[in-house]
Amino acid sequence: MGYRVAVAGASGYAGGELLRLLLGHPEFEIGTLTAGSNAGSRLGEHHPHLVPLADRVLAETTVATLAGHDVVFLALPHGQSAALAAQLPAETLVVDCGADFRLADAAEWERYYGGTHAGTWPYGLPELPGARDALRGARRIAVPGCYPTVVTLALVPAFAARLAYPDDVVVVAASGTSGAGRSPKPNLLGSEVMGAMTAYGVGGVHRHTPEIIQNLSAVAGEPVTVSFTPTLAPMPRGILATCTAKARPGVGHEQVRQAYEQAYADEPFVLVLPEGTWPTTAATLGANTVHVQVALDERAGRIISVAAEDNLTKGTAGGAIQSANLALGLPETLGLTTIGVAP
Amino acid sequence: MGYRVAVAGASGYAGGELLRLLLGHPEFEIGTLTAGSNAGSRLGEHHPHLVPLADRVLAETTVATLAGHDVVFLALPHGQSAALAAQLPAETLVVDCGADFRLADAAEWERYYGGTHAGTWPYGLPELPGARDALRGARRIAVPGCYPTVVTLALVPAFAARLAYPDDVVVVAASGTSGAGRSPKPNLLGSEVMGAMTAYGVGGVHRHTPEIIQNLSAVAGEPVTVSFTPTLAPMPRGILATCTAKARPGVGHEQVRQAYEQAYADEPFVLVLPEGTWPTTAATLGANTVHVQVALDERAGRIISVAAEDNLTKGTAGGAIQSANLALGLPETLGLTTIGVAP
Amino acid sequence: MGYRVAVAGASGYAGGELLRLLLGHPEFEIGTLTAGSNAGSRLGEHHPHLVPLADRVLAETTVATLAGHDVVFLALPHGQSAALAAQLPAETLVVDCGADFRLADAAEWERYYGGTHAGTWPYGLPELPGARDALRGARRIAVPGCYPTVVTLALVPAFAARLAYPDDVVVVAASGTSGAGRSPKPNLLGSEVMGAMTAYGVGGVHRHTPEIIQNLSAVAGEPVTVSFTPTLAPMPRGILATCTAKARPGVGHEQVRQAYEQAYADEPFVLVLPEGTWPTTAATLGANTVHVQVALDERAGRIISVAAEDNLTKGTAGGAIQSANLALGLPETLGLTTIGVAP
Amino acid sequence: MGYRVAVAGASGYAGGELLRLLLGHPEFEIGTLTAGSNAGSRLGEHHPHLVPLADRVLAETTVATLAGHDVVFLALPHGQSAALAAQLPAETLVVDCGADFRLADAAEWERYYGGTHAGTWPYGLPELPGARDALRGARRIAVPGCYPTVVTLALVPAFAARLAYPDDVVVVAASGTSGAGRSPKPNLLGSEVMGAMTAYGVGGVHRHTPEIIQNLSAVAGEPVTVSFTPTLAPMPRGILATCTAKARPGVGHEQVRQAYEQAYADEPFVLVLPEGTWPTTAATLGANTVHVQVALDERAGRIISVAAEDNLTKGTAGGAIQSANLALGLPETLGLTTIGVAP
Repeated sequence: MGYRVAVAGASGYAGGELLRLLLGHPEFEIGTLTAGSNAGSRLGEHHPHLVPLADRVLAETTVATLAGHDVVFLALPHGQSAALAAQLPAETLVVDCGADFRLADAAEWERYYGGTHAGTWPYGLPELPGARDALRGARRIAVPGCYPTVVTLALVPAFAARLAYPDDVVVVAASGTSGAGRSPKPNLLGSEVMGAMTAYGVGGVHRHTPEIIQNLSAVAGEPVTVSFTPTLAPMPRGILATCTAKARPGVGHEQVRQAYEQAYADEPFVLVLPEGTWPTTAATLGANTVHVQVALDERAGRIISVAAEDNLTKGTAGGAIQSANLALGLPETLGLTTIGVAP
Repeated sequence: MGYRVAVAGASGYAGGELLRLLLGHPEFEIGTLTAGSNAGSRLGEHHPHLVPLADRVLAETTVATLAGHDVVFLALPHGQSAALAAQLPAETLVVDCGADFRLADAAEWERYYGGTHAGTWPYGLPELPGARDALRGARRIAVPGCYPTVVTLALVPAFAARLAYPDDVVVVAASGTSGAGRSPKPNLLGSEVMGAMTAYGVGGVHRHTPEIIQNLSAVAGEPVTVSFTPTLAPMPRGILATCTAKARPGVGHEQVRQAYEQAYADEPFVLVLPEGTWPTTAATLGANTVHVQVALDERAGRIISVAAEDNLTKGTAGGAIQSANLALGLPETLGLTTIGVAP
Repeated sequence: MGYRVAVAGASGYAGGELLRLLLGHPEFEIGTLTAGSNAGSRLGEHHPHLVPLADRVLAETTVATLAGHDVVFLALPHGQSAALAAQLPAETLVVDCGADFRLADAAEWERYYGGTHAGTWPYGLPELPGARDALRGARRIAVPGCYPTVVTLALVPAFAARLAYPDDVVVVAASGTSGAGRSPKPNLLGSEVMGAMTAYGVGGVHRHTPEIIQNLSAVAGEPVTVSFTPTLAPMPRGILATCTAKARPGVGHEQVRQAYEQAYADEPFVLVLPEGTWPTTAATLGANTVHVQVALDERAGRIISVAAEDNLTKGTAGGAIQSANLALGLPETLGLTTIGVAP
Repeated sequence: MGYRVAVAGASGYAGGELLRLLLGHPEFEIGTLTAGSNAGSRLGEHHPHLVPLADRVLAETTVATLAGHDVVFLALPHGQSAALAAQLPAETLVVDCGADFRLADAAEWERYYGGTHAGTWPYGLPELPGARDALRGARRIAVPGCYPTVVTLALVPAFAARLAYPDDVVVVAASGTSGAGRSPKPNLLGSEVMGAMTAYGVGGVHRHTPEIIQNLSAVAGEPVTVSFTPTLAPMPRGILATCTAKARPGVGHEQVRQAYEQAYADEPFVLVLPEGTWPTTAATLGANTVHVQVALDERAGRIISVAAEDNLTKGTAGGAIQSANLALGLPETLGLTTIGVAP
C-alpha cells in the first residue's frame, strides 16, 4: 500500500468515520491514531464497530506522533489545526476536517469563529468549478463543513446557469446529531433528542453561514445573500437541506431540470434523482453521495432544491478522502462508494 | 356533564387524540365512536393507551350513528365531511378536522383537492384576528390543517405589525409521521422513517399551501406569496416550522421582539420563548401549545420565526376542542393543557 | 389546595415528571424547587414543557429550603436522601425517589450500593400485599425503582397463587434512556443510543436486582432466585420487561390467566390485557399504568409475563404520588391517569 | 467476474441487503432481479440507496427469469422457495433465505409453519460444528433465520463445552423492524414503532423457536428446552439477544470465558468482546458480525450470554453470502466485512 496515514482526533465521530473509510481504501495504510483526553485508551472503547482496529491504543495529538506519515487527517476542534500543520513537513499531505482554513475573508473568520484568521488552503469540494485543479497535487486541504457541502451542491447549478437571483437565498437544513460531535452535553442526550426536532443557530449566526455565502458567491460571480437556519433531527446521521432561491424571470421547469442534470452528469457522487422522487437521508447513509432533486414553484417564484447527504461521509470524512485522492493523483473515487446502507 | 359527543373516525390518529383529550374534559361525555373499515372492532385494538374506552365497539360512520349528539367531531379523510354534515341537525355542533370547509376560494379548492368546493365554515384558529367572534355560538367549525396552524401563528405578528413584505415568505417544516395518517403505506413503515429525513410535496404542491396563503393574506390585508416545503422527520408527533419573511426597511430586533410578545401576551396557548432559547417539538408533546421564537437576520434581511407544535394536539384535536369550547360558550381552555410530556 | 409541596432535584428527569404530575394534582400546591449544580437557574431552561413553572428559580437543595412544606419529594442521586430526611420534621411527608430506604438487608445494600445502610421506609408499591396498610398515614416513603415496579407487578400473581417455582426467575428488561438520568455521558448521547439496543449491568450486578428479589421473596414466602438483565432501548421513556418463571406441575393456561385477572381486577393502575394482545410501552407513556400479559409456554415449562410501564410515571413519579395520596388519606388515584399519550 | 447471480424478491429488505453486499463482492455479477407485485418497476423506487442498480427493472419471479444463472438467492415469503428450487438445475447454487428447508423435523415444520414439509438443505451457519463441511460444494443452502443465527452463536460455546444444562434455556431478543419485512401493516408504521418496545410471539409460538432448539440440541447432543420471547425495538436494524442457561455445578467465571474465547478464536465473524464491555447492535450495523459477551451470574446460577448482530447482514444476506462463498470454493469472507457503520 502506498501511503501511510495518521488520524488526529480518532476517538470522535469524524475520526471514526475517517477510519471506517480508510480501512476499505486500497492505497492507505493506517498508521498512528491520536486523541486529546482519550489518549492512552483503546480505540475499541470508542468505536466498537471498527473491529480490525479495536486494540489500537490512542497516542497524544502532537507534532511528534503525527510526523512520519505521508498523509495526516486532522479531525480536531476548530482552532487546533493551524499550529499543528505549521510544524508538519510541507510535503506531508495535511487534510483538515476543521474550519481553520476554509474562509478567505479574515473579517468573516473573526466574526464567526473569533481569534486570528489562519489563512486558506485549497478547498476540498471537488465538484465546485475549478476546485479539482487546485486540489491536484495539493499538500494542504481544507475540508468543507457538512452543511456547506450539501447546500452548495444543491444550489451550484442554479447559480452557474444564472437561473436564480443572488439576493435572497433561503436555506433550512435538518441534521442528525453526530454533526454536533461527541462531547457530552445535556441537550444532546438521547432522552432529549429522540422524538424531537429542535431549532438552533437561527438568524444567520451558525458558523457555516459565511462558508455557504463564500461558495455560492464564487459560483454566481457576485455576492449572494443567504438566510441559513439549521435544525437538529432525531437521527444519528444525515442532513436534509431545503435550499431555495428566487427564479429569474422566464425560467421554466425544463430549463431548471436540464441545468441540474447537466451540471452533475459526470459527477460520480452527486445524483440528480429521477423526476417525482425526493431525497431521503436514508439513501445516503455511509455513502459519499449527495442526492438532489429540484422543483420550480412558479407561483412563489422560487427554485426549490432539496439535497441529502451523510454528514459524516460526503459531509466530512468521505469528502476528505475524495480530495486526498485527487491530491495524491489517485482515482478520485478510490475507497468511496455511492451505495448507502438502508433501511 | 353537559354535552354528549360523537367522534367519527375514532380509530385513526386524529380520532385517538380527540378521545384522549375528551376523556379529560369535564363538560363532554363521550357517546358514539365510529369508523370506516374498522367498524365492529374494539377501540382498544387501535388505541391501547385509551384504557377507559378499551371495550367500546366502533359503529359505522353514518348519519344515523352520529345523530343524537350535541357535538360531532369528524376525523375523516378529506371529502367525506360535507355529505355527512349536511344531514346533521343545524343545532348540532359539527367540528370538521378535515379540509372540506377550510378554503374560501373554490378555484384553490379544486386545484389542490379536486372535486366540488363545499363552502366554508368558521375557521377554528381562535388566535387569528376576528376568529373568536366567528367561533362563538357557531355550529359548524372547520379545524385548520396541522401545518397552517403552526405556520400561521409563527407569522401573524410579523404581518399584523407590518414588519414584513408579503411577497416572499419561505417556509420549511418538519413533521412527525402521525401527520401522514394511519393507512399503512410502505414509505411510512418504521424501517423507512427511523433514521431518515425525507422531503415530499416540494414546489408548492402540498395541500396546506393555499390555506397558509389564505390565512397570512387575511392578516396582511394583501396577497401573500408563500413557498412551502414540508419534510418528514423520524418522530411520531410534532411539527417544527421555520418561517421566514423579508423584513421591511428599518425594522429592528427590538421591534420584532415586541411585536411577537405583544401579539401573544394574552394568548393562553401561544408562547413566545425567552430570548436565547429556541423551540423544540418535545416541549409541546401532548399540549395544546405553539412555542415561538423569532430572530431578525439583518444581513439576509429576513425575519426568521421558528415555531413548534404537536400536530395531533394544537395542530388537530386540541385546536378542535379549543374552538368547540368557544362555540359552546365554555372557557376556551377547558380540558386543554400547556404542559407537555417530556423527555 | 391542601398541601404545600417541595421537590428536590427538580431539574432532573424524575423531578420534571413529578412536577408535570403535581401541576395536575388538585390537592398539591407547588412550593420550593431545588437543584444541585443547576441551583440559580430558571426551571424553563431544563423543562421547557412545564410552561406554568418556566420562571421558577431553582434553590439550593438544603434542609432550610425544603423546610416549611407539608410534603417533600426527593429526586436525588442515591445516598443523598438519608441525611436530608433526618433533619426534616417527623410530621413532614418525605417521599424518596432514590434507593436509600428500599432494601431491608444491610448486607445487600452494602454489596450493591456501598456505604452505610440507612434503614427502610414503607415501600411505595401499593399493589404489593400489605403495602397499602403500611402506606396509609406514613410520613416516610421509599419509592421503588423503575425496574422493580414493573418486574414485581409482572410476577406477583404467579407467586401469590403458587403457580411458579421460586428458584429460577429470569427477567430481561429494555428501558428507555431517561432511566439513566440526565448527567451527560458519552454512551447516553443521542448519536449513540438512536438505532441501537445495548446490554449493560449483565450478570446480576444491576442495583435493582436485590430489590426485585426482596419483593418477589416476600410474595412467595420463600427466597426467590432471579437472573435480571437490563438493556438500553432507543426511546426516551418506557420499560418492557419479559419475566419468566418455571411453572409448577399441572399448572394450565386458564389457571394462569385467572390468577392474573383476579389479582388485578380491582387495581386501578395495573391492566391485564385481553388475550391475544401484548404490551407496548407506547400505551403507557405518561400514564401511571402497568400493562401486563401472560402466557404459559407448556413446552418450555415457563410462565412468561410481559409488562410495560413508563419508567418516569408509574416507575417513579407517578408511583410516588400514588403512595403520597395514600399516606395523606387522599383518593389513591388523585392526579394520576390511566390514559397514555400515543402515538 | 466468475459467477452470475440472480436475486428473487429484490424489492424487499432481505433482497436489498443481498444486492448491497453483492455490489461489493468481487466474484459475483448481478444478473436478473425479480419481484412479486413490484415486478415491472425500477429497483431505484424501492432501494434508492442502491445507486448503481437504480435503473434495473424487476422481472417476475419465475423459473424462466431465474434460469441461466450460476447462483440464485431466494428472498421470498416462506413457502415459495420449494416449488421454484425444484425446477432450477441441480448444478445451480440455490440459496434460500426463507424457512422452507431449515427444519429437519416434519412435525415441527407443520406445527409452526403449516403445510407440507419440503425437506432440509445444508444449513448455512458455518460456525456450527460440522457445518462448513456440509456447505463446501453444496448446491442448495438453507440460510438460518435471523434470531436463530444470533441466539445459536450466543450459546454454542456453553453447550459445546458442557457448561450448561440443556433443560432450561431462556432467551429474550429485541429486533429492529426490518425483521418484520416490508409489507405495510398498521403495527409496523413508524408512528407506532418509534418510541415503543412491544412484545409479540410470546409463549414459544414464534417460528424461529424450533430452529433454535434444533441447533442447540445438535450442539448439546441431547434435547434442549428453550423459552424464546421476541420483542420489537424502535430501530430499523439489529438484534440484541439475551440468552441464559443454567450453569452446571462448579462452573466458574474463567471457565466460561475461556470456552467462549476458544470457541470463536478462529472465527472471522464472531467476536467475543473484551471483559467489561457489552454488545450494542450499533457496532454490527451493516457488518457480517456477531458480537458476544458472557457473564456467569453465580447467585442465579445462570450463564448470561448477550449477542448482537445486524438481522439483515449476518442474520440474513451476509450469512447467505458467507455460505455461498463456501459452497463455491471462494474465500469464506469474500465481499463481507467486520466493520460496522456507526454512529
